[in-house]
Amino acid sequence: MDQKRVVIVGGGFGGLTAARSIRHAEVILIDRANHHLFQPLLYQVATAALSPGDIAWPLRTVFRSHPNVRVMMDHVLSIDRSMRMVRLQGSPPMLFDSLILAPGSRHAYFGHEEWESYAPGMKTMTDAVRLRGNMLIAFEEAERHRATSGSSPRLTFVIVGGGPTGVELAGALAEIGRKAMGPDYPHLRREDLSIILVEAGPRILPGFDRTLSVKAADALTHMGVTVKLNSLVTAVTPDGVQIGAGWIPSTHIVWAAGNRASPLLNTLSAPQDSAGRVIVHPDLTIPDDPWIFVIGDAAHCLGRNGSPLPGVAPVAMQQGRYVANLINQKLTPEQRPAFAYADRGMLATIGRAKAVAQFGPIRASGVLAWVLWCVVHIFFLIGFRNRVRVMSEWVWYYLTFKPGARVLY
Amino acid sequence: MDQKRVVIVGGGFGGLTAARSIRHAEVILIDRANHHLFQPLLYQVATAALSPGDIAWPLRTVFRSHPNVRVMMDHVLSIDRSMRMVRLQGSPPMLFDSLILAPGSRHAYFGHEEWESYAPGMKTMTDAVRLRGNMLIAFEEAERHRATSGSSPRLTFVIVGGGPTGVELAGALAEIGRKAMGPDYPHLRREDLSIILVEAGPRILPGFDRTLSVKAADALTHMGVTVKLNSLVTAVTPDGVQIGAGWIPSTHIVWAAGNRASPLLNTLSAPQDSAGRVIVHPDLTIPDDPWIFVIGDAAHCLGRNGSPLPGVAPVAMQQGRYVANLINQKLTPEQRPAFAYADRGMLATIGRAKAVAQFGPIRASGVLAWVLWCVVHIFFLIGFRNRVRVMSEWVWYYLTFKPGARVLY
Repeated sequence: MDQKRVVIVGGGFGGLTAARSIRHAEVILIDRANHHLFQPLLYQVATAALSPGDIAWPLRTVFRSHPNVRVMMDHVLSIDRSMRMVRLQGSPPMLFDSLILAPGSRHAYFGHEEWESYAPGMKTMTDAVRLRGNMLIAFEEAERHRATSGSSPRLTFVIVGGGPTGVELAGALAEIGRKAMGPDYPHLRREDLSIILVEAGPRILPGFDRTLSVKAADALTHMGVTVKLNSLVTAVTPDGVQIGAGWIPSTHIVWAAGNRASPLLNTLSAPQDSAGRVIVHPDLTIPDDPWIFVIGDAAHCLGRNGSPLPGVAPVAMQQGRYVANLINQKLTPEQRPAFAYADRGMLATIGRAKAVAQFGPIRASGVLAWVLWCVVHIFFLIGFRNRVRVMSEWVWYYLTFKPGARVLY
Repeated sequence: MDQKRVVIVGGGFGGLTAARSIRHAEVILIDRANHHLFQPLLYQVATAALSPGDIAWPLRTVFRSHPNVRVMMDHVLSIDRSMRMVRLQGSPPMLFDSLILAPGSRHAYFGHEEWESYAPGMKTMTDAVRLRGNMLIAFEEAERHRATSGSSPRLTFVIVGGGPTGVELAGALAEIGRKAMGPDYPHLRREDLSIILVEAGPRILPGFDRTLSVKAADALTHMGVTVKLNSLVTAVTPDGVQIGAGWIPSTHIVWAAGNRASPLLNTLSAPQDSAGRVIVHPDLTIPDDPWIFVIGDAAHCLGRNGSPLPGVAPVAMQQGRYVANLINQKLTPEQRPAFAYADRGMLATIGRAKAVAQFGPIRASGVLAWVLWCVVHIFFLIGFRNRVRVMSEWVWYYLTFKPGARVLY
């Protein structure tokens, strides 16, 4: 069967890699944003260390030299398997011969969706820009308070979730708050700012080796972050967070705790796990439909150790390349090898010259891990221009502690 | 009289220069934004050629090394001359010994303020980011229309006002639309896009020499811009612009026609001209108050030729430096020399390697004027980092026609 038209939903790491790798078919890439976002650096925008344009790349520009790829900025409303089409908000339905679903996920509030307005997550550029605005305004208000009345209500940032995103956000906030922003807010004192990282489990970075979890927690504590382990959030209000019997007053709460796959997948009528991810076959297809694929953190795909693969960029990119290959070679279901993830290791940064890394048997922390982290992240950035830019921003930031990108509008 | 505390309202070119130049007094610089904006390049953000962070600089960072300057982000509600204080939205009233008012201006709609919602102006970063978003979405919609239905309603941008801002905006739109965006929107055709510059008077760039006005109009026409002279706008609706008996259908109208000084000045009870500017004495003070100054485009200050000085950055900067000097030297009204503007010439850019320039008896156009324009603008940009950045962006833009900064959020 010739796959004349491939529709791809989502221009993240998985969808983008698939679209780039498909050779002869007509490709329609649909995303609700006009850009591919380098999500692992989103916390740098949220903490005003990088500008939005530094970590995003217009999808149309990415595909200029791919005449077979057409980019559409639109919302996908539902998928109609029997009619072989996706329904769109702004255009007529789009027919497909094969479909690659890479719609990603949003934050999950474990049945308490009403918490979202007090504790927003950070998945899109809009999220990050809003967080940045709130943080900058909070600093302005605290400074104004100190300058006019001599006292300041404590400025408390609570980050819920001790995975890589939560750790990176807490570390970046501590640095921006205590070192970089310090000289700009002469009335603010060190003790006016408090950053609390809340994790329900017994350690942060649970996907990493236990020794690295301990090192990361020590580094954060040293930077002034309060790390609260075994702390399950039981309520979120406009004024703070409840943790069992404990109460943390805060109007700046960020949610980095759980994921829920895109609700678009519910229209597929395919089996899903408790996080809404579609349970895919070893060739990443859904039951009874060998030309509908689900990839990235929208897919529940078992790894070698029997547990689902994590929702990280390398998994999504390898899956995108794998699916593109099946389509390029027109492989029937019987001819397809199972998808196998080649694990190249994990990295999480904690701050300036502080990171933890894990590659097979190798464990690294401190400056070495941080340099590795920089190289890997810059290597992954899509455009040449962005690479140079991010690199120069970082070097500048490292040397001067004067992060730009703090312009509020 | 010792001027212990100087309050400055507005962190534009005038206020910023004054704050930097005052030596011993305590300075309070109040602005509603957290940044100084390089307004002459705002149209580059609106047309997605530069990013917001490239043309703005956080005020707090600018004044890190000025311990006598305190930056406040707040709205000034009114000025109370008898109590010697300004009233603020977010803080207690601020007392002053001397006051420098540099609040700038907004667009004027000649009594038709209801036009603003259909034909927004471009004065702040928020304005520019909104214009950019509308432009990018309009391109997406036109492309989608062409791709799905084969036809497209014509995408018409109307710019009202043939001064430097209108000319620069029209030229930048023509370039982005026809050259840089072309490859990204493969279905859009040249004839789908129309850019119309509307000027009420008999020529564009009325402040320049007549020969340069003609050259600029020719260059714009050559780039595909329709220049309509002697065209007074008589009505603006959500669907278009009325010009006498003529009607231009458009949902993308930008207002660059008139200025009205900040309404804050109305609370001063000082004489104002028809554009709301305060009519100042030769030492830039208001009647009966030798320590309240008005500078920049909020002031009606006569030049050597007997007409008011234009609302451009060099005037504001020279006035800021002049007033700072009076304060530094504690000059009584009798000791003060009159402010005298040293005219260093005028520049307006039309596009890539196209500009007009006028320095005393010298007239230049084309590439030479454009290079001059680049150098002057970069030279004026505040921070070292921004200078390097804007320069590298420009070189990149010139070489590749791949403007970044098109990320929509």
